[in-house]
Amino acid sequence: MKTPEPIKRFADVFAELPGVGPRQALRIALYAVHRGRGFTEELMGAIAGLRSIKICRQCFNLHENQGELCEICADPSREQGIVAIVEKETDLLSMEKTGKFRGRYLVFGDMRKAGVLTSEQKIKLRILEEWIKNLPSGKAGEIVLALNPNPVGDVISSIVAEELRPFAERITRLGRGIPAGGEIEFADEETLGEAISRRN
Amino acid sequence: MKTPEPIKRFADVFAELPGVGPRQALRIALYAVHRGRGFTEELMGAIAGLRSIKICRQCFNLHENQGELCEICADPSREQGIVAIVEKETDLLSMEKTGKFRGRYLVFGDMRKAGVLTSEQKIKLRILEEWIKNLPSGKAGEIVLALNPNPVGDVISSIVAEELRPFAERITRLGRGIPAGGEIEFADEETLGEAISRRN
Repeated sequence: MKTPEPIKRFADVFAELPGVGPRQALRIALYAVHRGRGFTEELMGAIAGLRSIKICRQCFNLHENQGELCEICADPSREQGIVAIVEKETDLLSMEKTGKFRGRYLVFGDMRKAGVLTSEQKIKLRILEEWIKNLPSGKAGEIVLALNPNPVGDVISSIVAEELRPFAERITRLGRGIPAGGEIEFADEETLGEAISRRN
Repeated sequence: MKTPEPIKRFADVFAELPGVGPRQALRIALYAVHRGRGFTEELMGAIAGLRSIKICRQCFNLHENQGELCEICADPSREQGIVAIVEKETDLLSMEKTGKFRGRYLVFGDMRKAGVLTSEQKIKLRILEEWIKNLPSGKAGEIVLALNPNPVGDVISSIVAEELRPFAERITRLGRGIPAGGEIEFADEETLGEAISRRN
């Protein structure tokens, strides 16, 4: 008795998904079989729906607009000279939820642990630079480096800041410190240190 | 800016899969979009393949045979009077990999934490009993309760043993003790206790 071929194939493909290992992929296959035809149709429909998703050619965010720009890049009411560089679409969504940022974004893509830019990231910076040059002022008012506050994010932020310095009046990073609702007593040394040195 | 509808829908459906939470489902959606059309086709093909999977009407194992029985139940060389009751298909596959069991199985389904049988499990026991009555001897030679060795598995095993006692000459459970490669020094008290009382 061996695992039926379609289940093996399913498990192989699903094990490529982020955070899904081979054992979990097998469990998911068995689960889907037991849920039956209606559920597998639903899964397939959900995947088919992704086909209508496009990538914004300006900021690389996902969208499903008619044109080539996402909602944010196409929105004239967003402040044009302020750009936040985020790693992932989910970071962008989190920032949007706060309602505190009114500029546009650049979705930069997964940061390499080695602390170097991928060729794709270099191209994205070129595209941003071209866009900035076409602004009326020829310079961005502010570029916010909204990358995760960890060693890799710090290295990548320095590289990007260096690269974009001629194109922006100010280059900023997200504030660091004790998270809302956090307790000073339990903050790790580094976080508390940052909170002290960045007090305002 | 909101998450595009197709991504939301995808995340909702995928979050129903075992071990996948809402955040991971969203990450999977974004990953799939970035992998592009070829990959989403592959995912859909893998799911479509599951349609050919059937459930054996005798042991409830999965198969893709022409008939209604799985490979094991259809195999006349398997010992007919020996039945192992396992919780999941994956347990069955693990037992098959050992090559040490030559009987047939009953895939019993997820055990309830409350230690009671589901109505589906009761029906499965009835079907097994009917099958046993039709054996030449009218009785199974051995029923192996191959449920996980934990409190729930122990309670369910007792209930099933009670129920099947009239239908089997012997009811056994899998051996318990120190796992191969394990060290006595580090075995927990219960495991070592079992290993001592079940020494042979």
